[in-house]
Amino acid sequence: MASVMGLTFKNSALLDQAFVHRSYANESPIPIEDNERLEFLGDAVLNFISGSFLYRMYPQFSEEKLTKLRSNLVDEPHLATLARELRLNERLQLGQGEQQGHGSDKDSILSDAFEAVIGAYFLDAGIEAVREFVEPLLSQAIAKMAAQQDLDKHLGDRITDAKSRLQEWMQRHHGKPPTYRLIEERGEPHNRIFVVQVWGQGKLLGTGIGSRKRAAEQEAAQEAIRHLQEAGLMSS
Amino acid sequence: MASVMGLTFKNSALLDQAFVHRSYANESPIPIEDNERLEFLGDAVLNFISGSFLYRMYPQFSEEKLTKLRSNLVDEPHLATLARELRLNERLQLGQGEQQGHGSDKDSILSDAFEAVIGAYFLDAGIEAVREFVEPLLSQAIAKMAAQQDLDKHLGDRITDAKSRLQEWMQRHHGKPPTYRLIEERGEPHNRIFVVQVWGQGKLLGTGIGSRKRAAEQEAAQEAIRHLQEAGLMSS
Repeated sequence: MASVMGLTFKNSALLDQAFVHRSYANESPIPIEDNERLEFLGDAVLNFISGSFLYRMYPQFSEEKLTKLRSNLVDEPHLATLARELRLNERLQLGQGEQQGHGSDKDSILSDAFEAVIGAYFLDAGIEAVREFVEPLLSQAIAKMAAQQDLDKHLGDRITDAKSRLQEWMQRHHGKPPTYRLIEERGEPHNRIFVVQVWGQGKLLGTGIGSRKRAAEQEAAQEAIRHLQEAGLMSS
Repeated sequence: MASVMGLTFKNSALLDQAFVHRSYANESPIPIEDNERLEFLGDAVLNFISGSFLYRMYPQFSEEKLTKLRSNLVDEPHLATLARELRLNERLQLGQGEQQGHGSDKDSILSDAFEAVIGAYFLDAGIEAVREFVEPLLSQAIAKMAAQQDLDKHLGDRITDAKSRLQEWMQRHHGKPPTYRLIEERGEPHNRIFVVQVWGQGKLLGTGIGSRKRAAEQEAAQEAIRHLQEAGLMSS
């Protein structure tokens, strides 16, 4: 038995292997396997779990939006942040060069180790156990992102206001403003998530997410503007 | 109940949705959902199943080789071929423009539909059911690829022979030829798969796969040569 990040492993050798960086394996006098195969496996597991989670949780999101949201959730900086929070850096096995180069603080090495631990846990405990561990991390990350997005929108509002711009365009071209529909409100009071759609001419123009309703509306308007621009209907 | 490709669906609406191309949904007088969200889900499922399958079946393959092999297995042309073999093209729902443009024969549309059916089957029957369906398809595809690779190697042998080249280099630099180890032989007599490693100076230089032993050795030698070239030890 061994444990890390609150996960208990029956096969502790698998967990140990998840921390072996290539640079350490290369310097080992006896042949040992590094964590790269486990990383390959963990990457596939994470993509599947995050993909099916988002599919289930956001029935109103387009494939494009799901893809974008997932790539933010499982990108290198975010996985490295999780690895630091879970203190994986303390267990990394690095070669001398990487140790001196502060390898245990590199995003790439930390993110790979996180994926390798996920791969090892999948082999040790199965896909449902990994799902139970990963989904709460995904929920927290989405809430944080939404909060950050609000901040970005707040700053962005001073420069350009997507809602006003969309409203103006709709008035000019169709004689009517767009309508916003709050289609979902989820989460605890301190990290609530709003999902808003914007409609015009009977068509869904865009969807937005945010920790405040106004931020979600701004994002929906931004998406609508992007689509209108891509369709050549609005200048960029 | 509904079925396709030998799969039986409890929820036939899910299966129907998997065939709805965007062009059809766009022309529909009533709002219907296209297959793009299911395609997103199916892509994640396929990547996970093929990744964990390859991890398990090829314990001797590096992360690099696993990644390459998987991307060949789940790339657009290969999924489109599977879709044709399974006659998914007959069930596609396309808009008028796509119908006239022979959309049901386009690789991109067929491959997306294959992924969408996989996504729908995952929702309907769970991950283990998808695994049982997909793994035999992967095995067949690998056997076919290995056979094709033999053919390529056979043609390639006339131009450049990786084994001879590696042997020459090892003799010149280390005074000894490399050694080849057959580490696995798998499959039925008519589609057997050989896995071979090439070693030199106590180190693993490369791994190869093929439906004949000699082809697997050639591939292993090619990988060894690529590594030596990348390390700046051999000219390209």
